[in-house]
Amino acid sequence: MPGLSDYQQLIEQHIRELKFPNDPPELYEPVQYMMSLGGKRIRPLLCLMACDLFGGDTKAALKPALAMEVFHNFTLIHDDLMDKAELRRGKQTVHHKWNMSTAVLSGDVMLVLAYDLLTEADKDKFRDIILLFNDTARKVCEGQQMDMVFEQAEQVSIADYVKMIGLKTAALLAGSLKMGALLAGAAEEDQILIYDFGYTIGTAFQIQDDLLDSFGGEAFGKAIGGDIAANKKTYLTLKAFELADNETAKGLAEYYGLQGHKPENKIKAVLDIYRELNIKVETEKARDKYFDHAMHCLEGLHADPHKKELLRKLAADLINRQK
Amino acid sequence: MPGLSDYQQLIEQHIRELKFPNDPPELYEPVQYMMSLGGKRIRPLLCLMACDLFGGDTKAALKPALAMEVFHNFTLIHDDLMDKAELRRGKQTVHHKWNMSTAVLSGDVMLVLAYDLLTEADKDKFRDIILLFNDTARKVCEGQQMDMVFEQAEQVSIADYVKMIGLKTAALLAGSLKMGALLAGAAEEDQILIYDFGYTIGTAFQIQDDLLDSFGGEAFGKAIGGDIAANKKTYLTLKAFELADNETAKGLAEYYGLQGHKPENKIKAVLDIYRELNIKVETEKARDKYFDHAMHCLEGLHADPHKKELLRKLAADLINRQK
Repeated sequence: MPGLSDYQQLIEQHIRELKFPNDPPELYEPVQYMMSLGGKRIRPLLCLMACDLFGGDTKAALKPALAMEVFHNFTLIHDDLMDKAELRRGKQTVHHKWNMSTAVLSGDVMLVLAYDLLTEADKDKFRDIILLFNDTARKVCEGQQMDMVFEQAEQVSIADYVKMIGLKTAALLAGSLKMGALLAGAAEEDQILIYDFGYTIGTAFQIQDDLLDSFGGEAFGKAIGGDIAANKKTYLTLKAFELADNETAKGLAEYYGLQGHKPENKIKAVLDIYRELNIKVETEKARDKYFDHAMHCLEGLHADPHKKELLRKLAADLINRQK
Repeated sequence: MPGLSDYQQLIEQHIRELKFPNDPPELYEPVQYMMSLGGKRIRPLLCLMACDLFGGDTKAALKPALAMEVFHNFTLIHDDLMDKAELRRGKQTVHHKWNMSTAVLSGDVMLVLAYDLLTEADKDKFRDIILLFNDTARKVCEGQQMDMVFEQAEQVSIADYVKMIGLKTAALLAGSLKMGALLAGAAEEDQILIYDFGYTIGTAFQIQDDLLDSFGGEAFGKAIGGDIAANKKTYLTLKAFELADNETAKGLAEYYGLQGHKPENKIKAVLDIYRELNIKVETEKARDKYFDHAMHCLEGLHADPHKKELLRKLAADLINRQK
């Protein structure tokens, strides 16, 4: 049975060997650049693991697995542009290194290149593959749109926030897993379960991400409070607004709305409110609820227990990461 | 035999009836807006005509035909953003009416929606349909990129210019025709011929477009010289540089490079050079060369002569239009 690092090595090797077109170079260089920036390659990894879980041919699943990674990198190019981010994985973002037009157009062609990779999948399953991919891609766009709307919104409910992170982050993890299951010819019931597993793991993952920003611990080299400084609404903020009495909510809103306020003071004040309202524990509870649901889905899958254990371990590592 | 207006009515009706998702509204309203702006709907028209030409079921071809129109409108949203255009068909462009992020993301989801429409095509042909669509979409991106590179380039050869308009404009017309032929189950030989027909008609169409900007005649209500005022390199400019002696080329370069120069004077001077070098006739010759090649392709098609005549008439109308 292949381990995680075997899969990751296989994926990295095939990403290096991917043959993108090269003319005009101004269009395809940013594609190569983006794909070379690295990352955890978690989406193709999930696709291959799910394929293997149901006894599928992981070699035949490689190109569709890479399609999920190419798609993910397409969304990063366009998201970075929309967010005006200057850095991605410590390197310049595409629109920053080149320009806005390049980011738009190289992103566009990357989405088409993802569909190109899908055409190498088994003919019998091809229509279902495209349907799944379209559904996933639509959801990711919807999630990004919701995220942008929430930035401007005065109030966001926790339910809407969870829906947004589900669409923006979890749908692609779930879609990658289901892609692998579909390619392996898994029973429909198992395809639904593994999708649900991925969706809830993805949701737990994003909640953990929010948690780390406020309670990650500087021991791990991560600056605390970046989300707070940027006025980003996270699970923690929304929970705090939900639990706060009128006076505390007013104070939180005042701190959160501030622009150009000394970040240290602002972060400290918001963290104090979080502590007062026990937000860390509340957020961990929510994360664990989604994680437990995911474990329940995993148990229900008709598959080799040893292979399920590998997936469980990966999921636990993702959620329990400290940075 | 259905006439052009029958097809156009059918297309308009189905565009009105297209069911796009509506949540989040901020994502899908710009999609609806763009699709409602009208236009000649030439791409789905070509798809349906080609399908009928080879005895296919045009009803079954409707959704893939609309996919070509949705794709075209996706490219318009992103092109308008890259070109910083404020108007499209007399209405505000998407990035101007909303903002940059909306134009990026609504465009993205529109590309996915085009793939969604394709999934309704015949299962047997589905893989070939996606391969054709991917190839077309990639070419359109490459053409747009070349166009942007040419804007900054000091010198562009006529061969490269023709390649660029082929990718940016002709490939989608050719792809739409081939899509119809493919759906009708036309012989491969005919699929190749009709693609070639569309590609050369598309090239002739774009050269005619260039010609109209300088020699369209104000009688038709079109302002003359918009391309010249905007320093846009067209077939005419590049041909003029090719034919000019050193002194004339120097004069042309001086006028063409000018920013903020009085447009009337600049346009007049460049048109005088065009006249001196007989550029109108030279450009008509090039246009007619591509048109004749297209007619030659059309003749070779194994199809009902009456239906071929309808396609010939449409092509002639496209090329001989005066505005």
